[in-house]
Amino acid sequence: MSRVRVHNFSVSIDGFATGEGQSLDAPFGHAGTRLHEWFFPTRTFQQMLGKPDGSHGVDDAIAGTWEAGIGAEIMGRNKFGPQRGPWENDDWNGWWGPNPPFHTPVFVLTHHPRPSVEMEGGTTFHFIDATPQEALRQAREAAGDLDVRIGGGPTTVREFLAEDLVDHLHIAVVPIVLGRGERLWDGLEGLESRFQVESVTTPGGITHMTFTRP
Amino acid sequence: MSRVRVHNFSVSIDGFATGEGQSLDAPFGHAGTRLHEWFFPTRTFQQMLGKPDGSHGVDDAIAGTWEAGIGAEIMGRNKFGPQRGPWENDDWNGWWGPNPPFHTPVFVLTHHPRPSVEMEGGTTFHFIDATPQEALRQAREAAGDLDVRIGGGPTTVREFLAEDLVDHLHIAVVPIVLGRGERLWDGLEGLESRFQVESVTTPGGITHMTFTRP
Repeated sequence: MSRVRVHNFSVSIDGFATGEGQSLDAPFGHAGTRLHEWFFPTRTFQQMLGKPDGSHGVDDAIAGTWEAGIGAEIMGRNKFGPQRGPWENDDWNGWWGPNPPFHTPVFVLTHHPRPSVEMEGGTTFHFIDATPQEALRQAREAAGDLDVRIGGGPTTVREFLAEDLVDHLHIAVVPIVLGRGERLWDGLEGLESRFQVESVTTPGGITHMTFTRP
Repeated sequence: MSRVRVHNFSVSIDGFATGEGQSLDAPFGHAGTRLHEWFFPTRTFQQMLGKPDGSHGVDDAIAGTWEAGIGAEIMGRNKFGPQRGPWENDDWNGWWGPNPPFHTPVFVLTHHPRPSVEMEGGTTFHFIDATPQEALRQAREAAGDLDVRIGGGPTTVREFLAEDLVDHLHIAVVPIVLGRGERLWDGLEGLESRFQVESVTTPGGITHMTFTRP
């Protein structure tokens, strides 16, 4: 059975995975870039931008596991864009330009479905109004034998964790107190009991945690 | 100037420093012992119990810094005991038996002052209704040239952090999702900007963080 995986999901020490006030200019609201500064220099992120290289340390080693073996992604609409409610038009195709870094089918959860859109490089966005279970069924069908990534944002990751649909969760705990935004951990009391948990702190001060289904 | 220090303060990954429902049988409420399992085997804790030895690893090395150079402690009433409101009598002298592990004056913050009580081993409990600043003034006077420890619980630590009165903060992040209880980080947005922050994860899975005033 293919696994369901979450990778490179940054959370502040007070549990926020994104800040308050998302907008076109601020995808993570008042958090700005603070939750992801550790990620930017890595080879993994630089290659998403089409740059040839980047850092090769432990942060990158862990970040780089996001890609291999993934056949489809599921993301929440708030990861896809800052719009809320019915779409005004179909012009918005995500934050990532014509060639998004996913290179697989991507299922965008929304109460306002619209036609699928095929991007360059193998990414196709499908817009579905579905429960986590139904979204996963569709993503698994698209992924074949490969794994499914839950790409975020916090609400989507939290819903899949609450339904016990996640097999591997990588959290990067960033040593900042964000104070406001979307919390990851709400409603997940006792989550650790379902997983084998490992932690390592890298020299930049990030604590990487992996939750793996035993 | 003597420093103000917090040590061995355990917090879950969702930011709770104690659980819901404190009682005589459950000093940390529904959290039980889960926030402090890392601490129990250490030589530092075993010696508080009068035992001769315990573990000598990195957890103990960090835990053991709590004692040296401390001349007084300030604690909240909820650390001192499970009672709320006016004292029914003066029988309760804390959870720690006749010889508490503090061995200094301890200032208990309460809206219901009662006479000071001298315990064995150098601990004297003083009960004061005071602002953080006033409590610190009294504790510093009692500590002489030595440092003052803020002993908890979460409300008290948070108040002293909010007033920017803390010079050194040691947090042990425990990889559990507690779900309910008293949050440490609320109202402390941007706290990290006032400190130099270091993190290390020990083999038991605890991430020790130190926040030190530069």
